[in-house]
Amino acid sequence: MAPAGGPWAKKGILERLESGEVVVGDGSFLLTLEKRGYVKAGLWTPEAVVDHPDAVRQLHTEFLRAGSNVMQTFTFSASEDNMESKWEAVNEAACDLAREVAGKGDALVAGGICQTSLYRHHKDEVRVKKLFQLQLEVFIKKNVDFLIAEYFEHAEEAVWAVEVLKESGKPVAATMCIGPDGDMHGVTPGECAVKLVKAGAAIVGVNCRFGPSTSLKTMRLMKEGLRAAGLKAHLIVQSLGFHTPDCGKGGFVDLPEYPFGLEPRVATRWDIQKYAREAYNLGVRYIGGCCGFEPYHIRAIAEELAPERGFLPPASDKHGSWGSSLNMHTKPWIRARARREYWENLLPASGRPFCPSLSRPDN
Amino acid sequence: MAPAGGPWAKKGILERLESGEVVVGDGSFLLTLEKRGYVKAGLWTPEAVVDHPDAVRQLHTEFLRAGSNVMQTFTFSASEDNMESKWEAVNEAACDLAREVAGKGDALVAGGICQTSLYRHHKDEVRVKKLFQLQLEVFIKKNVDFLIAEYFEHAEEAVWAVEVLKESGKPVAATMCIGPDGDMHGVTPGECAVKLVKAGAAIVGVNCRFGPSTSLKTMRLMKEGLRAAGLKAHLIVQSLGFHTPDCGKGGFVDLPEYPFGLEPRVATRWDIQKYAREAYNLGVRYIGGCCGFEPYHIRAIAEELAPERGFLPPASDKHGSWGSSLNMHTKPWIRARARREYWENLLPASGRPFCPSLSRPDN
Amino acid sequence: MAPAGGPWAKKGILERLESGEVVVGDGSFLLTLEKRGYVKAGLWTPEAVVDHPDAVRQLHTEFLRAGSNVMQTFTFSASEDNMESKWEAVNEAACDLAREVAGKGDALVAGGICQTSLYRHHKDEVRVKKLFQLQLEVFIKKNVDFLIAEYFEHAEEAVWAVEVLKESGKPVAATMCIGPDGDMHGVTPGECAVKLVKAGAAIVGVNCRFGPSTSLKTMRLMKEGLRAAGLKAHLIVQSLGFHTPDCGKGGFVDLPEYPFGLEPRVATRWDIQKYAREAYNLGVRYIGGCCGFEPYHIRAIAEELAPERGFLPPASDKHGSWGSSLNMHTKPWIRARARREYWENLLPASGRPFCPSLSRPDN
Amino acid sequence: MAPAGGPWAKKGILERLESGEVVVGDGSFLLTLEKRGYVKAGLWTPEAVVDHPDAVRQLHTEFLRAGSNVMQTFTFSASEDNMESKWEAVNEAACDLAREVAGKGDALVAGGICQTSLYRHHKDEVRVKKLFQLQLEVFIKKNVDFLIAEYFEHAEEAVWAVEVLKESGKPVAATMCIGPDGDMHGVTPGECAVKLVKAGAAIVGVNCRFGPSTSLKTMRLMKEGLRAAGLKAHLIVQSLGFHTPDCGKGGFVDLPEYPFGLEPRVATRWDIQKYAREAYNLGVRYIGGCCGFEPYHIRAIAEELAPERGFLPPASDKHGSWGSSLNMHTKPWIRARARREYWENLLPASGRPFCPSLSRPDN
Repeated sequence: MAPAGGPWAKKGILERLESGEVVVGDGSFLLTLEKRGYVKAGLWTPEAVVDHPDAVRQLHTEFLRAGSNVMQTFTFSASEDNMESKWEAVNEAACDLAREVAGKGDALVAGGICQTSLYRHHKDEVRVKKLFQLQLEVFIKKNVDFLIAEYFEHAEEAVWAVEVLKESGKPVAATMCIGPDGDMHGVTPGECAVKLVKAGAAIVGVNCRFGPSTSLKTMRLMKEGLRAAGLKAHLIVQSLGFHTPDCGKGGFVDLPEYPFGLEPRVATRWDIQKYAREAYNLGVRYIGGCCGFEPYHIRAIAEELAPERGFLPPASDKHGSWGSSLNMHTKPWIRARARREYWENLLPASGRPFCPSLSRPDN
Repeated sequence: MAPAGGPWAKKGILERLESGEVVVGDGSFLLTLEKRGYVKAGLWTPEAVVDHPDAVRQLHTEFLRAGSNVMQTFTFSASEDNMESKWEAVNEAACDLAREVAGKGDALVAGGICQTSLYRHHKDEVRVKKLFQLQLEVFIKKNVDFLIAEYFEHAEEAVWAVEVLKESGKPVAATMCIGPDGDMHGVTPGECAVKLVKAGAAIVGVNCRFGPSTSLKTMRLMKEGLRAAGLKAHLIVQSLGFHTPDCGKGGFVDLPEYPFGLEPRVATRWDIQKYAREAYNLGVRYIGGCCGFEPYHIRAIAEELAPERGFLPPASDKHGSWGSSLNMHTKPWIRARARREYWENLLPASGRPFCPSLSRPDN
Repeated sequence: MAPAGGPWAKKGILERLESGEVVVGDGSFLLTLEKRGYVKAGLWTPEAVVDHPDAVRQLHTEFLRAGSNVMQTFTFSASEDNMESKWEAVNEAACDLAREVAGKGDALVAGGICQTSLYRHHKDEVRVKKLFQLQLEVFIKKNVDFLIAEYFEHAEEAVWAVEVLKESGKPVAATMCIGPDGDMHGVTPGECAVKLVKAGAAIVGVNCRFGPSTSLKTMRLMKEGLRAAGLKAHLIVQSLGFHTPDCGKGGFVDLPEYPFGLEPRVATRWDIQKYAREAYNLGVRYIGGCCGFEPYHIRAIAEELAPERGFLPPASDKHGSWGSSLNMHTKPWIRARARREYWENLLPASGRPFCPSLSRPDN
Repeated sequence: MAPAGGPWAKKGILERLESGEVVVGDGSFLLTLEKRGYVKAGLWTPEAVVDHPDAVRQLHTEFLRAGSNVMQTFTFSASEDNMESKWEAVNEAACDLAREVAGKGDALVAGGICQTSLYRHHKDEVRVKKLFQLQLEVFIKKNVDFLIAEYFEHAEEAVWAVEVLKESGKPVAATMCIGPDGDMHGVTPGECAVKLVKAGAAIVGVNCRFGPSTSLKTMRLMKEGLRAAGLKAHLIVQSLGFHTPDCGKGGFVDLPEYPFGLEPRVATRWDIQKYAREAYNLGVRYIGGCCGFEPYHIRAIAEELAPERGFLPPASDKHGSWGSSLNMHTKPWIRARARREYWENLLPASGRPFCPSLSRPDN
C-alpha cells in the first residue's frame, strides 16, 4: 500500500487540525473485545490481532463506518515487557489491520504506545525508552501516518515516550490517563500539558480512566496551563464511555465496579453528543473515546458535529437523528419519543432499585 | 455444505433436550447490530445479512465462541409484509450465514419467524399464515435444523405460526414476548403454553420484552400451566439483557428509556449467571437471550452451567471464572476482586445521581 | 352513658361517620416522642404520660391544631403484661391528658388497646381477654367516647379484643397492622375485616406497619371482602408516615432501617394529601396516621379534604395551601414554587448518592 | 453585670470553651415548629413565643433534655423591619422562655440576631445597626448570658452585627450561613472568619444552609484562615439536619426540595454522631444544629461526645447507645441490629425508587 503523502494522499493529522477540521477518533478496543470474547481482562493484551484478525478488523470497520478518522493500531500494552517474543508480530499485524480498514475510508493510521510495566518498578529511562523504540521501529516500517503516546499516569514517562516518538519526524499526539487532580506524582494537568508540548507533542490531552465530564474538566485545566505558559498545541480528548463522577485520583480502575460491573455507567448516545459539543466548545478538535466507547458512541460524536463538518458518517444510514426513526412506530407513545427534546431531557432509570447511584473508590 | 442428518451429524435439538442436555441459545442481533451500525432502530429489519454480511457473520461467530448451540437465522421481521421484494434474498442469505458459522462448532441452525405487522391490522388467518409459509419454504430449501416462532404478543398468532411450521416435520420451538400478565388479550402464560404445545410446539417459553427475573416468573407460570394440563414440553427462555422490574404488561418497549436510553439497565455477567442458574433450577434447558444479550452474556450462561455440562465455551480462553484473571493485578485492591463472593455481592452504582432507579411505563 | 362534655356535647364517632363526615385521626406518638426524648425504642411503652405529661399534652395539642377529631389515649402497650404495676396509673393519666386536650376543640377521646405480648407465647383466650378487660375498665371509668383495638397482626387476637370492648356498649373501631398479604396465619385482609365486623366492630381497617400506598391496597381488599360478605362497616386507615414499597409480609419492622434509619422514607405533606384523597375516593372516612405521622401530616389530610368538609384546621393559619406562602420570597426561583403543580410533581432527592432506593427485608 | 443566676451561677460560655469543654448547642426552631403547626413557612417569624408559648417552651425543654447547653432565644427574624410593632414583645417573651427552661438545667441563654431584610435593599450601616441595637437592648434588659449573630450571607453585615453586639460587653458568637465558596460577594470562609474575629467575635463559625459534611468543609477553611492570619477564636458549627451534597453557593434554599420536600434528606442520629466526632476532631467545641436538627439529633451529639465530657444527657434515659435497646426484641433479626457496627454501616434506602439521589439547584 502506498504511504500517506503521495499526490492522491489523505490530508495528514496536522493539516486537518491546523485547518480547523474536527478529527473524530476511534473508541474502545480492550473492553469491547473482552465482551466479544477476544481479550482477557486483567492482562488486557492484544493478541487478537494475530489470533482473531476478523474480530479486530470488524471493530475497526465499525468505527470507520461510525465516522472515525483515525484507525489506531491495536497495540495497547504490546511492548516487549508485556508480550515477550510475540510483541513484534502483534505490532506488525496491528498495523496491517489498521491500514487495511483505513484504506476503505477517510481515516489515518496512528501507531500507539502506552505506559510500560517496567516504569512502575524501575524508573530507568534507557530501558523504558528502548521499549518505546522497538514499537516505533515497527510503526516506521509500516509507515503509520502519525503516533500516539497514550495512557500515561506519570508525566515523566509520557515525556520519555514523546521524546522517542518525535525522533521519527511523524506528528506525535500524547494523552495522559489523568483527572483534574493530575498525575500520580502531583503534576497538575496544566503542567503535564506543558511538559508534553515542550517534549515535542503537537497534540495533547487525556484518554481513559475518567468519564466524559471529568475528562473535559481536565482538558480545561490543560488548556489553561498551556495558555498560561504561552504554548500552542492541538487538543485531544478520548474519554471513557462510562460515567464516573465518583472517581478518585486513580480513575475508574479504583471503582468497585471495575472491570466487570460497569454496565450501569455506560453513556447513552445522547450523553456523548453532549460531550462532543462541550469538547468542541472548549476548543478540542480531536475527539474520540477510550474504554467503553462503542461504535455508536463514535457515531454520536460525528452526528453532533455534522453541522460543523458538513457531512454525516456512513453508519448514519442506519440511524435517524435524535430518534427520528421512531416516528413511524405503531404505538403513539413511542412515536412521541422521536424528537430531540425527549432524549436530551431523559433521566434514564437503572432498573436496579437495590443499587446506589455512586460508589466509593477502593483507594 | 452437507445438511444436518448425515452419519457425522450433530445431535438434533430434541435429541439434546430429551437426553437432558443444556442447550445454550444465542443473543441479541437487532439492538447489538444497531449499536455496531448495521440495523436501523424503529424499522428493526435485517438487511445487513445482504448488505454487511461480515458484520453478521462476526456476531454469529462471537455467539458460537461464547458457547451458543444455536445459530438462529437473522430473519427477524424478514417477512414479505415488512421487506417487500427483498424478503427472499434476506432469508436465504441469513440461512447461509447461520449455517456457515454453525459449521465451525457444535451449533444447530434454527430458522426464525416472528409476529407480523399484518396481524395487528387484519386478523386474517389465511394471509398471516401465507407470510409464515413463505419464510418456511426458504428454511426448508436451506435445510435448517429446526424452527423457532418467536416474539408473539398474541397467543392466537403464535398458534398459527406453530401450525404452519410443524407442517415441515422439523422440530418447532415457540416463544412469546409476554410477561406474567399474559398476552395482549389476557391469555395467561399457562394458557399460552398449553395452546402452543397443543398446536405442535415441542419447546415453549418466552423471549424478549422482559428482563431476566421477570421472564423467569413467566416461565414458572408456563410450567405450572403445562403441568396442570398434563402436557409435556421442553422449556426455553431467552430474556432481555436489561433489568426491567418496572415494566408494565407491554414490556420494555413502553419504558421511557426504550430504545436509546437503556444503557443503565444492562445486566452484568454475574446477573446472567444467576439467571442461568435459576432457569436451570426451574427445569428450563434451552437458555439464551434476546435484545441486549451480548456475547459475554451468553458466555456467562455457558460458564455458569459448565459443571453440569462438563465443558467451557471457547471464549472462556479469554475469561477467568468469577474474575480470577484479576489475581495478578498490580494494585492489591483490584486483586481483591478476583473472587466469586465479591462479584456476587456487588451492588453496582449507576454513576448517575440525578437519575432514578425505576421509571413508569408510558402505557 | 352521658355524652362527653355535657348537654352541648360533640357528635359521637358513629353519628359523624353515619352522616358522611370525614373524621381525621391523629398521628404518631411512639416514634415521634422517641425523637423528642420521651419514649424508649425497643420497649415502646408510654410511661411519658406520667413522667412527662407536658410533652404528651403538647403532642396531643399539635394534632388537635392540625385537625384531628380524635385524641387517642397514649396507652399503646400499656397493658399489665408490659408495664407491671404502673399500668393503671398510665392508663388513667393517658385518659386525662387526651380528655383535657380534646376539650379544647372538636375532638373525641378514644381509648386504645393493642396486641399483647402474652398472645405470642400463650394463645390463652381467657388471660389475653383479661388484659384487655383491665384497660377497658379504666376507659369506662374515664368515660372515653369510643374504643380502638389497634395493631393486631393476628385476626384471632383482634377478634378477642373486639369481643371484650363491645361489651362496654361504646362504639368499637378495630385496625390490624397487616398488609395485602394478610395476617400472620394467612387470613386475608378481606377475611380479617369480615371477622372483625362479625365480632362487633363498627369501624374496621388497618394501622401501622405499612406505608400509605400499601395500606390503601390492603383497605381495597378489606372493602371487597366486606362487600362480598354482604357486610357494612365504616372504614378507617391509619398508615405509617414512611414509604415502604419494599416491605414483606411483616411490614416495616423487618426493613433494615427500622427503627433508627427510616428518615429517608418520611412522607412529604404532598404525599399525604395524595393518600388522603385516595383514601377518600375509596370510601374511607376515618383517615389518620400511625408511626412517623407528624402533626403536619395530619394537617395535610385536613387540608386536602377541606373542600369536602368546608373548613380548614386551626394550624392552617400557619400554612398556605400548596406552598402559597412562598409567593413573597425575595428569590424568584423560590417564588416559583408557590403552586400546586410544582409540589405535586416534585421527585424529591435523597441527598444520599451512596444509598439505594429500596432494601430487602431481613425476614 | 451579675452572672445569670446569682452566686451559684453556671460557668459562662467563654469559661467553658477556654477550659476545653464541649458546648452542645440547640437545634431547629423554625422548620420544626412549622411542622408542629406554629411557624409559617416563607415568613419564618417567631410570633409563636407570644401566641403559643407552650409549644416553644416544650421545644426548648426537649433540647435541654437532649443535652443542649445553650437555650437560644427564638428571635430569628424578630427585628423591627420584619415584625413591625410586635418585635419588642416577641423578643422579650423569647428571652423569658429561654431563661425559664435554661434554669432547669445546665444551659446558658443566648440572645440571637440574624441578617436583616433591610440590608438586601439598602446597605445602610446606620439603619441596619439600629435594628440590631434595638434587639440588643432587650437582650441586655433580660440579661442573656451571651450573644449570637447568626445566618449572615454577607460578611459585611455580619461584621456590623458583631460591632453592635460587642458593645454590650457580653461574649459574642458569630456564624455565617455560607458554604466552602464563601459569602455572596466572594469573601472566602477564611476571610469571613478573620473579619468576624477582628470585629470582636470570640466564637466564629457557620450555621444553616448546608448539611453536616459541607459545613465541616467550611469550618476547615475558616480554621485555616484564622491560623494563617495568626488569630485565635473558638469555633462553632450549627449545620442543617439535612444532607445537601448537591447544594450550590446559595445552599439548601436553592434546592428544588426547599422547604416542603426535604424529608428524604433528613440525617439519621448516626449521621449526626459522625458529624459531632468530625467536628470535635477538627477542634470545634461549640457543636449544635440549625434547620432540620431535631432533639434526637442534639442527643446524638451529646452521646457521641459523652466519653470526652464524662456524662450523658437526660434524654439518654430513653435511648440506648447504638441501638442497644433493641436487644430484647422478640424477633432475632431485629435484635441483631442492637450494635454499633450495624448502624454505622447501614445505607438507608429512600423507599422512593422513582426519585433521584441528587438534585440540581434552581440557581
